[in-house]
Order: sequence, then C-alpha cells, then structure tokens
Amino acid sequence: MGKIICAGLGPGDPDLLSVKSDRVIRNARHVAFFRKKGRQGQARSIVKDMLRDDVTEYPMEYPVTTELPFDSPEYRQLLVDFYEDWANRLEDLSRDHDVVVLCEGDPFFYGSFMHLHTRLQGRAEVEVLPAIPGMVGCWNAMDTPFTWGDDVLTVLMGTLPEEDLVRHMQAADALVVMKTGRNLPRVKRALAAAGKLDDAWLVEKGTMPGQRIAKLTEVAADDCPYFAIVLVHGQGRRPETAE
Amino acid sequence: MGKIICAGLGPGDPDLLSVKSDRVIRNARHVAFFRKKGRQGQARSIVKDMLRDDVTEYPMEYPVTTELPFDSPEYRQLLVDFYEDWANRLEDLSRDHDVVVLCEGDPFFYGSFMHLHTRLQGRAEVEVLPAIPGMVGCWNAMDTPFTWGDDVLTVLMGTLPEEDLVRHMQAADALVVMKTGRNLPRVKRALAAAGKLDDAWLVEKGTMPGQRIAKLTEVAADDCPYFAIVLVHGQGRRPETAE
Ligand SMILES: C[S@@+](CC[C@H](N)C(=O)[O-])C[C@H]1O[C@@H](n2cnc3c(N)ncnc32)[C@H](O)[C@@H]1O
Ligand SMILES: C[S@@+](CC[C@H](N)C(=O)[O-])C[C@H]1O[C@@H](n2cnc3c(N)ncnc32)[C@H](O)[C@@H]1O
Repeated sequence: MGKIICAGLGPGDPDLLSVKSDRVIRNARHVAFFRKKGRQGQARSIVKDMLRDDVTEYPMEYPVTTELPFDSPEYRQLLVDFYEDWANRLEDLSRDHDVVVLCEGDPFFYGSFMHLHTRLQGRAEVEVLPAIPGMVGCWNAMDTPFTWGDDVLTVLMGTLPEEDLVRHMQAADALVVMKTGRNLPRVKRALAAAGKLDDAWLVEKGTMPGQRIAKLTEVAADDCPYFAIVLVHGQGRRPETAE
Repeated sequence: MGKIICAGLGPGDPDLLSVKSDRVIRNARHVAFFRKKGRQGQARSIVKDMLRDDVTEYPMEYPVTTELPFDSPEYRQLLVDFYEDWANRLEDLSRDHDVVVLCEGDPFFYGSFMHLHTRLQGRAEVEVLPAIPGMVGCWNAMDTPFTWGDDVLTVLMGTLPEEDLVRHMQAADALVVMKTGRNLPRVKRALAAAGKLDDAWLVEKGTMPGQRIAKLTEVAADDCPYFAIVLVHGQGRRPETAE
C-alpha cells in the first residue's frame, strides 16, 4: 500500500522548497504534475534538476479545446471528467507505490490538486506538504515589507467582476491579485477606481528565471502575462507592539 | 564586510523551513532572535537542533513593563529605542561577520524584523529569506483545501476594532485572523455578527509540538491562546478552470 503525496513547490526557485518537499521529490519513483498540452509545465520545470534517473512521470494534461468557452457547461464537464479520470489513475497507482504529485505554490491555496484531494477522500492515503505561496515569493522579490501592524490584507482573483474588485480593493490596506493574464485590463481599471493604481506593482515569474518587477502604470495595455501577481503594499495602521 | 540575513522559519516544524533557510541557519556563526524576557523564544526553539556548537547567540529581548499599557506613547518610545539599539548592534556586527536573524513565519508578513529592515536600509547589506507563513501551516494542519476558484481571502488582526472586524468578515469568503490572545472574545463576537462563527476553527501552535485544532464554538470563553490563528475556509465561488 503506497500513498499519494502532494508536494507544494513554492514560488519557483528550487532553493525555496521546504526541506521535506525537497527530500520527498528527490526520492520519488513516480511523479505526476499538471500541465497544458504541448507545454513542459511550470511545476515540472521547477524540479528539473531534482528528479531521479529512474523516475516514471505522469503528465496530467488539462483538456484543451479551441471551440468551447472556459465557462461553458461543456468545458466544465470535460474538466470534471479529467479530474475524475486522474483520481482513478492515482488511486490505482498508489495501491503499489508512493506517488508524488507536484503543485506550484501551496497546494491548499487555490491549487488544482484540491480537485483530486476531494475526490480521493476515503479512497487512498493522501498527504499534502505545504509550501511558500507564489505571492510570498513575489513580495520577497521586491525586498520590501508587505504588511504591518493592523493592516488588512485581501487576496483577489483577477477573474472577479469589476465591481467586486473595486469594492474589495477599497476596503483593504494591502492587496494581492492573482490570475492576471487577460483579466489585467479589468484589474487596472478597478485599481484606478479604488484609488490604488499608482501604488500597484506587477511581479511576473517571481523568484524564477525571467522574473520581472514593474510599476503597473508602466505595463503596456496589451501586456497581459498569466504567471504574474499584482501587489499593493500595506503602510501599517499603527506601529507594531511586542504582543 | 558581512551581511545581515533574516531567515524566515515558517510555521514551526523544522522540516518546513526552506532548503535555503535551513542551510543558512546550520552554517551560521552569529544568530540573533526576538524573545520576551524570561522566555526561550518561539524562533529560537524552532532551530534548537540546528545550530552549530560554536554559534554566538544574540537574544533581542522586547522591553517589558508592567506599568505601561502597550498602546501608550511611553511604551511605543521604549519599542522605538529597542529597535534603534538593535539596528545599531546588528550594523556593527555585520562589519566583520554574517549575522543571521531568525524570524517566525515569513519575515515580510507582519514580522518584527521589518522594523530593523527599515532602519538598516543603506547602512548594511540585508537579505531576507521568505518562508511559509504561519497561516499556511495552520490550514495545512487541518488537511482541508482553504481557498477555491474565485474565493476572496481576507487576513485580519484580532487587534482591530470590533466594527472593522465585522465589516471585513462579512465581505470575505475565506478568513484568517491572527494575533488572537486576549482579542479572542472580540473576534468571536465579530464572527457571530458576521454569521461565520459556526464555520470558524482555532489552530494553536500549528505544525508544532502541542498543536491543537478546535471548532471556535467549542473553545472556552476564558481560553485565549496567543500563538493561534482563526480560520474560516472558502467554499469556492465557482469551479476552477484550467486557466
Ligand atoms: C491557480 S493559482 C495557484 C496558486 C498557488 N497554489 C500558490 O500558492 O501561489 C495560479 C496563479 O498564481 C500566481 N502565481 C503563483 N506563483 C507565482 C509566481 N512565482 N510569480 C507570479 N505569479 C505567481 C499567478 O497569479 C497565477 O495566475
Ligand atoms: C507578529 S505575527 C507574525 C506572523 C509571521 N511573520 C507569519 O508569517 O506567520 C504573530 C501571529 O502569527 C500567528 N502565528 C504564526 N505562526 C503560527 C502557528 N504556527 N500557529 C498558530 N499561530 C501562528 C499568531 O496569530 C500570532 O499572533
């Protein structure tokens, strides 16, 4: 009887993996990871110098379609089938072996593995190893304190409707916006409406080769990187006390 | 010329340090850390099996007073002097040696080191190593996905006024409340007012010896642990797509 271990990878720099994820990945004989068809996959490329020579790899390729919109019921059904199928395959594999599933950032923080985790409950032994979320790597890359004292931090997805973005942006002191990509023009409009565009930074590929840090006002309108995070730093509501 | 390296320690389990923090701490000759007078200090106890035999330790003890309230101008001045004093001492030390400053969780996420970081700008070379924030260790300890799809996550300090807590709690899908301690009764009232008390969990000493996980409704009114986090899980606004 083996188990399924989802190893969080952190923001991208292999030196930022936890000691435990690092050890588990270097010893793994069976490694699965999500990717888009035709790509190497972000998760797989983070561990490229860590895998054993005799590893067996299981790329879990998201269903692609050029015809179906991402939010159509048909596309959702494709995704449900995809997760169901891989839950079955991982369950089978784990009967005889340990299987390590790679996951960018922290697995329980907006991670795709959660869809397998839910399906595998009661069917296999599953262990999840936490990791540094992408946003933490991004604010560290800016080498500036992110939240102070009583600051309120809100994490938003760029996929939210514009009026929701504005409302939450107005209420918070520090902001993180993930899932940027083609949502970036809407995110910028919302930040401007909330009076925070001038304080916003874009961090693309934080801690990875090709990392870029730019003021959001200086990012061209048609420049919409997917693997990027928008940050607005907190300023601290009051000095921290010793408690 | 040495430098000052602030090594984030993560939530508490030494196996959850980053590969880089682990290496830096095991090699360190000079190690500084915050603590309250008369305590060993949380940070120091996380690394207890990692330090070299010939290490020199610099406990940075918060000024204590039984007479001054934490939010009085006099106490604030004591704190300012304390940070100023340690900024000077670390700057001096770093002329000849590397000095490693230990910091629980991620240093730039509500960490005390930020007060030294700000003061040391332009005076010494400072490097900050990111880590898994305490909250990530806490939700991982519950072995349940924390945020899904379009969930809005808000992180609040228990020190906030009750009406601010209620307002932010109502607006968010997933919640983290830090700095609990004697603020916990107020946090509970605010969660009740926001209709979220029944979904709230308390995680004390997440990933550490003595870890405790309890429904917040089942925590006694006079039970107010300081090193604890309140969590309300997101339920997912819509299923995640492949993008
Ligand atoms: C589906 S979420 C996965 C989040 C991941 N589980 C985590 O803990 O960060 C994907 C989003 O994470 C963000 N992201 C994660 N790591 C990043 C990094 N190193 N640099 C920039 N963005 C990153 C991007 O906004 C991307 O759209
Ligand atoms: C001054 S903040 C420091 C936060 C730290 N820099 C981080 O990234 O988590 C201290 C608060 O962190 C929370 N905390 C940090 N680690 C924790 C853990 N392992 N278990 C429970 N609470 C934790 C507690 O709420 C505590 O009041």
